Amino acid sequence: MVRIDDPVITAQVLETRLGGEKTLEIPLQSKLTPSALDLLRARGVQVTRRDASPSPAPAPQPASRPGGKKEFKGIFCPNIVIFDGKNEINYKEMERYIEWLIQAGIHGLYPNGSTGEFVRLSWQERQDVVRLICQVNDGRVPILAGASEANLRDVLKMAEFYASIGVDSISLVPPYYYKMSNTSLFEYFAEIARNSPLDILLYNIPQFTQELPLDLMEKLLPYERIMGTKDSSRDLPRLINTMHRLRAQRPGYVVLVGCEEILFPSVMMGASGGTIATSGIIPEVIVEIYERALANDVERARILQYRVLDLINLMLLGVNFPEGFKTGVAVRGFDVGPPRQVMSGEEQHYLLKLEAQISCVLSDMGYSVKGPRACPVTQLPSIVSR
Amino acid sequence: MVRIDDPVITAQVLETRLGGEKTLEIPLQSKLTPSALDLLRARGVQVTRRDASPSPAPAPQPASRPGGKKEFKGIFCPNIVIFDGKNEINYKEMERYIEWLIQAGIHGLYPNGSTGEFVRLSWQERQDVVRLICQVNDGRVPILAGASEANLRDVLKMAEFYASIGVDSISLVPPYYYKMSNTSLFEYFAEIARNSPLDILLYNIPQFTQELPLDLMEKLLPYERIMGTKDSSRDLPRLINTMHRLRAQRPGYVVLVGCEEILFPSVMMGASGGTIATSGIIPEVIVEIYERALANDVERARILQYRVLDLINLMLLGVNFPEGFKTGVAVRGFDVGPPRQVMSGEEQHYLLKLEAQISCVLSDMGYSVKGPRACPVTQLPSIVSR
Amino acid sequence: MVRIDDPVITAQVLETRLGGEKTLEIPLQSKLTPSALDLLRARGVQVTRRDASPSPAPAPQPASRPGGKKEFKGIFCPNIVIFDGKNEINYKEMERYIEWLIQAGIHGLYPNGSTGEFVRLSWQERQDVVRLICQVNDGRVPILAGASEANLRDVLKMAEFYASIGVDSISLVPPYYYKMSNTSLFEYFAEIARNSPLDILLYNIPQFTQELPLDLMEKLLPYERIMGTKDSSRDLPRLINTMHRLRAQRPGYVVLVGCEEILFPSVMMGASGGTIATSGIIPEVIVEIYERALANDVERARILQYRVLDLINLMLLGVNFPEGFKTGVAVRGFDVGPPRQVMSGEEQHYLLKLEAQISCVLSDMGYSVKGPRACPVTQLPSIVSR
Amino acid sequence: MVRIDDPVITAQVLETRLGGEKTLEIPLQSKLTPSALDLLRARGVQVTRRDASPSPAPAPQPASRPGGKKEFKGIFCPNIVIFDGKNEINYKEMERYIEWLIQAGIHGLYPNGSTGEFVRLSWQERQDVVRLICQVNDGRVPILAGASEANLRDVLKMAEFYASIGVDSISLVPPYYYKMSNTSLFEYFAEIARNSPLDILLYNIPQFTQELPLDLMEKLLPYERIMGTKDSSRDLPRLINTMHRLRAQRPGYVVLVGCEEILFPSVMMGASGGTIATSGIIPEVIVEIYERALANDVERARILQYRVLDLINLMLLGVNFPEGFKTGVAVRGFDVGPPRQVMSGEEQHYLLKLEAQISCVLSDMGYSVKGPRACPVTQLPSIVSR
Repeated sequence: MVRIDDPVITAQVLETRLGGEKTLEIPLQSKLTPSALDLLRARGVQVTRRDASPSPAPAPQPASRPGGKKEFKGIFCPNIVIFDGKNEINYKEMERYIEWLIQAGIHGLYPNGSTGEFVRLSWQERQDVVRLICQVNDGRVPILAGASEANLRDVLKMAEFYASIGVDSISLVPPYYYKMSNTSLFEYFAEIARNSPLDILLYNIPQFTQELPLDLMEKLLPYERIMGTKDSSRDLPRLINTMHRLRAQRPGYVVLVGCEEILFPSVMMGASGGTIATSGIIPEVIVEIYERALANDVERARILQYRVLDLINLMLLGVNFPEGFKTGVAVRGFDVGPPRQVMSGEEQHYLLKLEAQISCVLSDMGYSVKGPRACPVTQLPSIVSR
Repeated sequence: MVRIDDPVITAQVLETRLGGEKTLEIPLQSKLTPSALDLLRARGVQVTRRDASPSPAPAPQPASRPGGKKEFKGIFCPNIVIFDGKNEINYKEMERYIEWLIQAGIHGLYPNGSTGEFVRLSWQERQDVVRLICQVNDGRVPILAGASEANLRDVLKMAEFYASIGVDSISLVPPYYYKMSNTSLFEYFAEIARNSPLDILLYNIPQFTQELPLDLMEKLLPYERIMGTKDSSRDLPRLINTMHRLRAQRPGYVVLVGCEEILFPSVMMGASGGTIATSGIIPEVIVEIYERALANDVERARILQYRVLDLINLMLLGVNFPEGFKTGVAVRGFDVGPPRQVMSGEEQHYLLKLEAQISCVLSDMGYSVKGPRACPVTQLPSIVSR
Repeated sequence: MVRIDDPVITAQVLETRLGGEKTLEIPLQSKLTPSALDLLRARGVQVTRRDASPSPAPAPQPASRPGGKKEFKGIFCPNIVIFDGKNEINYKEMERYIEWLIQAGIHGLYPNGSTGEFVRLSWQERQDVVRLICQVNDGRVPILAGASEANLRDVLKMAEFYASIGVDSISLVPPYYYKMSNTSLFEYFAEIARNSPLDILLYNIPQFTQELPLDLMEKLLPYERIMGTKDSSRDLPRLINTMHRLRAQRPGYVVLVGCEEILFPSVMMGASGGTIATSGIIPEVIVEIYERALANDVERARILQYRVLDLINLMLLGVNFPEGFKTGVAVRGFDVGPPRQVMSGEEQHYLLKLEAQISCVLSDMGYSVKGPRACPVTQLPSIVSR
Repeated sequence: MVRIDDPVITAQVLETRLGGEKTLEIPLQSKLTPSALDLLRARGVQVTRRDASPSPAPAPQPASRPGGKKEFKGIFCPNIVIFDGKNEINYKEMERYIEWLIQAGIHGLYPNGSTGEFVRLSWQERQDVVRLICQVNDGRVPILAGASEANLRDVLKMAEFYASIGVDSISLVPPYYYKMSNTSLFEYFAEIARNSPLDILLYNIPQFTQELPLDLMEKLLPYERIMGTKDSSRDLPRLINTMHRLRAQRPGYVVLVGCEEILFPSVMMGASGGTIATSGIIPEVIVEIYERALANDVERARILQYRVLDLINLMLLGVNFPEGFKTGVAVRGFDVGPPRQVMSGEEQHYLLKLEAQISCVLSDMGYSVKGPRACPVTQLPSIVSR
């Protein structure tokens, strides 16, 4: 008999500590993740739940706002989706990856965003991804989930589902494909704000869908559910004006920057944090940029921001979004599987080259990268784990 | 007992001819549409199918290409979706509307296009709309259905479903939201072309998603399933180059224009026809423009093209697409119901004004428009039913 | 002694008919062009002007509007500027070229437009080019000259100069570089319309400067000097709406299309004509397209429009505007000299290849093209001089 | 007799110190500005130049690079052009304004940029403006002058003129109106770099002319005359990449930011300084932002950057560029005269309102603003002269 007291028990945990045992005792409140249940079933392990045992150490409480809500600040990792050989979601590897992110100190998780390829998933898959992430997270960090569904009714349906499984807030892009007038856009967000069970982050990403004008964000301020903005527009003047104008009326208005290259300047100008896909590859460095910026440590923050620039460029350019970021995750040792969208042979070849380059950049930063593609030792000083 | 020999029997037909009868005899092959079945159930009518009866007059055969395929030429009506008070699809009214279109002489039907709001429907709704249209049509005109699903696997799944219910061809826009490189775009269409059970129209609509370059269309020509192009770009120089370049290699390449204002010049330059949303409001006039253009009747075609211009502008401008076109259908006497996308009060007010204006323009054309909003009699000569 | 009775006497005329003579008698009103004067000076020829001689045959009168103004319809050739080895304007070759265009049947001349590289010339050069063209033309065809100067005062100064040398109308793009509000744009054109000594064509070319909206054109209609529109936007729906809306208020409103690929459809929809740079290379064919379109000869006009498409594409694409068109003029036997704007070696190489290709296309059309680059004989039927 | 020892003597200086005297003694090297000469002529004052007198105190030397060149860092003020009632340049008021800027501590002057309306001036006017500024400056601060003329030959001619009168460097936008290929764009800048007598700043301003890609800037690095970049694109990710990529190869590469709203973050990321039009209105504050950023004084720099944001927005939005900035200069007590570009009555009215608003914002900052439009006292703490 093995006894494991962790609040969340994953297949990884079991593989390390179960040994050959066939019975397992766990606390009453502990969560077994999907892959853990699979493993237990596969090995025929019998599970008993202790009742009167001393309660496990309480999980660290995330920072909370008055009213018990979690605070939205720091680095939110926009989560990629990992597929298996059959192009189905690989929940086991995703679980391992999400656990790794939390352990690495990420401040929040963000599934079903642009990095999460929400438009390429089915309605069911979008629900399954978020459920898995909520289970693995088990309340440790706040979760922001994209809820931009095909129509208003489905947005609200999804928000209700998210609320039921422990998501903290939703993010919403303007409807894509068709262009709407600004008055209709206002009505769309206002109607959701009136009915959503969760707080809302307005998500501006003019690269992929129509712009969400700052004037319109201001008009939506009276709705309490509107909690803040996530801005991926690469436009710092606009971000600064967003903070200037909206916080004059609502001082706690959350502003997350979604542009990787300007995390440091944005935080230094007052941004609450960022949704930074690169944090899915080098969480420690991105979290450090945020913290150094908060502490006005300009020298170190600037060095870090410039050192991650090449990595960002490699992952963003020359390949369809978000394949570059998934390649980065692969270099960190996760089996990200095939892309869901088709890719030319030429691009597949490029991705292999990219993997080698990313591997080198990570070595340069001080990460120990193993794997088939050797990387020349360089002279750059390490920026990791200082 | 009533006997009805029509190949397709709708609720409308029954209401006219059933009287108070409780038994109905129909030919073995006749189709009862969904609303017909509803009505029969509601009235408790018993249906028997005659076996050895003289076969009904054969339905008029659509023009066919060698190999039994239907020819894609003339006016394809991009079908709107009609919702009811609960924002569910109103199949009964849609059936009545589709039947009306076919009777009016439209050359083809086109569900799940941009006018059909495909991105606002669920997977199930997209299937239901096309099934209903196939049933009402019953093989009378060719059906082109939009199949731009969330990912490649779902596109092929949908294409197979369409093939199973009698759709003739699919149309495909480039994936929306994310931008893809042109090599990936090629791979995307090529992979579908290799596996689709139906012929494919490449659909260019840069207003709503990324452009489908002419070079890429040319590269896709070797795939037999690529049947043609539907171009809604409003760019006649491009349309002319499409015909010039692709027909030099494949003389029968289909080119449908999707820009209402240039139907006549496009057909005169050799376009196979058009997907013209205005044909859902004034099918006779749009069909006549096409026929006059084919016959080189420049004077009449030009008069008609200019006369429909105000109607097109009213429906396209000042209101979110495709609400203007749905308002036009309402003026023709169909209950199009509420929009699925939310709309500001201001815009709802505008739609009422628009309805009155459209009503006037239709009166001007010679249509007898009834309804609450009176329209001043004008001096313009009628263009209808000459 | 030689006597020459032509109303305009060019160096070309003199070279043919002067022989070795040293005295020349010409009518009192005859014009000697700059190159003619050069030649006479160079050879030391003495000129006498006959006074009481029988007047020469009157020059053919151009079509006129009530009030004696020339009619703006048909094909206006946007004139290139020819430079010499020192990058100065080569007036002699320009004169020969302009004379050739008029002889070829062009309906109007159009210097200082986009094709005429007005922004690359100095104030003085812009005046000199137009003066030369007025002199060579000598009233034979109407002249439209671009007058988009650095500021309003200079526009009016240039318009007055143009009026003094016989230009018929000016064309005006919206000011470039800065973007102006539409109300300022209105004020700009209105102020010019109130003070210009010449009629004005509003020139829309959104490829190069900000769009001139149709609403604004409509607001300018009350100004009598606003004579029409020249639209190079490649947007036929817009061109059609321009004619529909503005001619409803001003039936004689001139609309010239500036998009080469849609000359035929535009004229067929009612355009007054076109400013077609290709008419500087194959004037006879472009003029024929216009005339066939006017005559509703759809079959022949369509054939011609498609036959010139390859030539247009060759000249427009792959090379900085307007170098492709200048290369076309070179193929017709004029020494167009070096470009004023610098060009990479790669592009210079491309131009040589382009010259060979244009040469082939012209051969295909039926032109006899001589020169160093041989062209394979093809099977295409000639379209020239039918 | 009055003796004045200043190195530059303006009309202002004379008005204060001349009194009623009719003779003036000045050092041999002193410069009399145009307005000073006018005043002397008007009053009939006789001027004598002292030869052997003790030399005046040397003018403060600007920071210099090895080789005696002035360093390009800090705040360069993009100079407006002031017109008089006849729409001619008002040299007297410009002189007074330029002197005021230099006294206020601006680090450099920048005539004939976008703020300087270079495309609305004649060739002669562009020369006169820069000559006046050089004379007033008299070597005190570095001068960067725009040299984007109509063609390459004229660019070089202007650069030579600038060199002859003491300009330090030129800035160059890509040619406007026409779009050029990137290879031609390279050839254009390379040809100028090979022949220019002055160093060159590559000026990227995609709002007004075609983009100058970073790749192309990198390709131009081997040319010594290419000294740096002035980037007005509002795109901080691009600015950061510019510094990262180009300084890796040329450590002293100058990067000036031209986007007012991000001066502080840009300098903090390493920008050499900025060309900031707002420095023409509140030079002390803008210079302080730069200095605080250099000193890593994040708190104060952030406060200042946010406090100038409203002023920037007022001047940039709602009015044609650069009229808002000229209105700001007017509030500081200079007679900026009428705009050269026409303006609607509506916009003139707006400018009056704007003037009042700017006046309020300046009061809020702590400036004592006098004038006809009273401004309510507010509660904001002063940011001036701390």
